[in-house]
Amino acid sequence: MMWAVIPAGGSGTRLWPASRRNRPKFLLPIPGPQSMLQATWERLRPLVTPHHCFVVTGAAHVAAVRDQLPELPPDRIVAEPSPRGTGPAIGLAAFLIARQAPQALMGSFAADHYVADPEGFRRAVRAGLRAASEGFLVTVGVAARYPETGYGYIRVGEPLLAEEGLTVHRVRQFKEKPDRETAEEYVRSGEYCWNASMFLWRVDVFLEALRRLLPDVYRPLAAIAACWGTPEAERCLAEIWPTIPEVTIDHGIMERAEDVAVVPAEFGWADLGDWHGLAQLLADDADDSVVLGCEHLGLDTRATLIYGGRRLVVTLGVEDLVVVDTDDVLLVAHRSRAQAVREVVRRLEELGRQDLL
Amino acid sequence: MMWAVIPAGGSGTRLWPASRRNRPKFLLPIPGPQSMLQATWERLRPLVTPHHCFVVTGAAHVAAVRDQLPELPPDRIVAEPSPRGTGPAIGLAAFLIARQAPQALMGSFAADHYVADPEGFRRAVRAGLRAASEGFLVTVGVAARYPETGYGYIRVGEPLLAEEGLTVHRVRQFKEKPDRETAEEYVRSGEYCWNASMFLWRVDVFLEALRRLLPDVYRPLAAIAACWGTPEAERCLAEIWPTIPEVTIDHGIMERAEDVAVVPAEFGWADLGDWHGLAQLLADDADDSVVLGCEHLGLDTRATLIYGGRRLVVTLGVEDLVVVDTDDVLLVAHRSRAQAVREVVRRLEELGRQDLL
Repeated sequence: MMWAVIPAGGSGTRLWPASRRNRPKFLLPIPGPQSMLQATWERLRPLVTPHHCFVVTGAAHVAAVRDQLPELPPDRIVAEPSPRGTGPAIGLAAFLIARQAPQALMGSFAADHYVADPEGFRRAVRAGLRAASEGFLVTVGVAARYPETGYGYIRVGEPLLAEEGLTVHRVRQFKEKPDRETAEEYVRSGEYCWNASMFLWRVDVFLEALRRLLPDVYRPLAAIAACWGTPEAERCLAEIWPTIPEVTIDHGIMERAEDVAVVPAEFGWADLGDWHGLAQLLADDADDSVVLGCEHLGLDTRATLIYGGRRLVVTLGVEDLVVVDTDDVLLVAHRSRAQAVREVVRRLEELGRQDLL
Repeated sequence: MMWAVIPAGGSGTRLWPASRRNRPKFLLPIPGPQSMLQATWERLRPLVTPHHCFVVTGAAHVAAVRDQLPELPPDRIVAEPSPRGTGPAIGLAAFLIARQAPQALMGSFAADHYVADPEGFRRAVRAGLRAASEGFLVTVGVAARYPETGYGYIRVGEPLLAEEGLTVHRVRQFKEKPDRETAEEYVRSGEYCWNASMFLWRVDVFLEALRRLLPDVYRPLAAIAACWGTPEAERCLAEIWPTIPEVTIDHGIMERAEDVAVVPAEFGWADLGDWHGLAQLLADDADDSVVLGCEHLGLDTRATLIYGGRRLVVTLGVEDLVVVDTDDVLLVAHRSRAQAVREVVRRLEELGRQDLL
């Protein structure tokens, strides 16, 4: 049986006004009816017992996480005093796991990713765990279906082993988010997959890599872990955590380590960045509209995404819109401007409307 | 001093979901901050004392009218048991006025018309009253600014008298709502004005016309008026009212009577039929957006009408939309489809959603 950590961070301003500082993306019912966190949990449940799972989240979200995951033992929720990227969050979980099971297999799975095919996801995890048990730092790659410029890419190297009908490969190179042309080249070549930032490893292998590659992260985490469970734990965390540099696992470890492997797989994965991407993902046909969470009456309505609540939303003679109806804000945007929702959030911040962020 | 009646009827389904069966157009703050009824009242106040004014409205709206017009004596609110058109509504008010002042000058003014220039309106009324005092049935006409197909037209005849810088004319002919081509011809000719369905007359002159032209309306109204103020009044109204034929003053009286006059005037009048018309009326420039009743943050937003409440409405990269945000329904429509809002209402009725009508 593996251990798991679910880093549940990020604010997701591009899904505003559904996502807010106090209600980040992973708590939202997208695509519903469960939240993204709950869907992540259910996807993992056949692989992990609740006792073997940690959720690392902001202090402000601990209560919501507890509400949404009643199966998770409360001591498995780790409150980050401040966001420091995935490196410290996942690193701390690794230390806590190592205290109980120093050679455990461990996986890390973001709380706000969409997966259409959970069994396909679990097949990829099981294949990756085979390579992890042999000492590799493993990342799950997603077959690049189209030249997405919003994701990082992984260039796949020589095959290492076959498992669950999948082949685990060495990683040849990690690539930053590409421009359109480069992304098209990647997809054409067939040598690349998307980097889904899902990781699998033996906890001792990972901690050794952390020690070697990110000693500034390793040492303070070791100190925090040493007093975990003692009366000093809270003070220790509060004092040491802010000294840890901000770093992601991708940049800090995976791109620099040796013996890094990837499981290219296809399980309908998406990192739902913005409303347009969400509409694209959920519509069967480009002309279809998508309705999440509310009643909708559409007359002559095309390719429109509606995210609502208790109100009936009526659309008449419109196309390519995003309508997000929340208790205190209503957003009506053209789909082509989905990225600019961040600008709206910035503008509201300038206007001092913290109540709406 | 004149008497006035404000017929406050009509459901205005084309302004749904702001207007509802229980909240017709005249009760709405369009363009705000007052309701259309309150604006009508204020416009009339320099001409009419509260005691000399009747509001005839549906039984369901009596309480709302009382709330909105605290100055109006409660016994001046007449509750129609059912809608019968302006003929019976205005006719009943005429009978009630005649009981107190048989030769009074009287005017009738719809509760849901928009007037940009109240003093200009009052000048037209004063000019019309001159002709009314001389025995004419007078209608106030509005200079036809553009070939509107949603209004009736009046062909202006020979001049009768000058007053307040305006000229009162005989009416040559009333015309139904024309098609586009005919409307353009009317405007080009300069001989036509819009029929604003505002009437001025001596109450005895009007009642004589009613007796002669609409005896089926005259007789039952006379019977209702006879028991007005007695213990029998309510029963009398409830029994007789439903027997009265449905008819408008325009069709039943003005188009058929002799000695009908019109005051062509210009005071920024509009009968706000639908959201597109409202946007057209209130925007200084065709590209401007119009915001009624709510906070709005617009980024790259053009020619969009927003009618809201307590929510912030954010629009991003949209144009030519109507956004109507109410407590239980949100409407997002293209302006070109403003007339089809009636179809939405019909559809909801079919779906049994009486709660939203």
